[in-house]
Amino acid sequence: MGDTIFSKILRGEIPCHKVYEDAHVLAFLDVFPVARGHTLVIPKEPAATLDALSDEAAGAIGRVLPRIARAVLASTGATAFNVLQNNGAAAHQAVFHVHFHVIPKHEDGSGLGIGWKAGKLDSTAGAALASEMAATLAKLPCSR
Amino acid sequence: MGDTIFSKILRGEIPCHKVYEDAHVLAFLDVFPVARGHTLVIPKEPAATLDALSDEAAGAIGRVLPRIARAVLASTGATAFNVLQNNGAAAHQAVFHVHFHVIPKHEDGSGLGIGWKAGKLDSTAGAALASEMAATLAKLPCSR
Repeated sequence: MGDTIFSKILRGEIPCHKVYEDAHVLAFLDVFPVARGHTLVIPKEPAATLDALSDEAAGAIGRVLPRIARAVLASTGATAFNVLQNNGAAAHQAVFHVHFHVIPKHEDGSGLGIGWKAGKLDSTAGAALASEMAATLAKLPCSR
Repeated sequence: MGDTIFSKILRGEIPCHKVYEDAHVLAFLDVFPVARGHTLVIPKEPAATLDALSDEAAGAIGRVLPRIARAVLASTGATAFNVLQNNGAAAHQAVFHVHFHVIPKHEDGSGLGIGWKAGKLDSTAGAALASEMAATLAKLPCSR
């Protein structure tokens, strides 16, 4: 993957409003927030999209998400929030270094907007697809 | 937290189209998908929202997200996808057991719709907020 603004932040070349850091993870405020307290959580490991991230780095992010969420809620007074992680330009990704958005939903309506056009899963097609996905997963190497 | 449809699935009282399972995590197809391959990843640990989940359970989910994402992409042909995790009715949560949506974005436009009204972080306010959140985080117990 190429250099991104997040690699520059990780190298300390660009400042950030840091919220949390450990050996694998950095969290900081989004400079273009959709709500007050909008926080980004990124792996130190370079990967453009989540499917390219190691299990270890992804596990390290997962492990701190509850604590970061609690800090976002405590500091903003929000009680609802979304976690969003986008992969690919078609899925709204703008910076090609994995990042999880933690976005509080405030009473003034600020926060993540969600468009949800749900269908109904056909049981036969669902069984076939789940079975294919399970077989694919079973073959995937596990980096743990 | 109360009983939910996901607790019933975890206890085997309601069937699901299973994609993945380990000691801490179950993944299965959403029966009301917004796109073909829409998968739910849930912890076996009962928690209504992510901020109430243990570090261990959240880490276990994070660790498998890249592999589940690769299986979703491989089986559907999608190249872009979103991961979404909602907490609280105001943030679009409908089932009160933590769940991560893995949603492929298909060429027909099906997938997650995102509403994004971004502002600009004020540097002084950002520094104060990040500092407060970091202090809160430092005081939070870590269950690792």
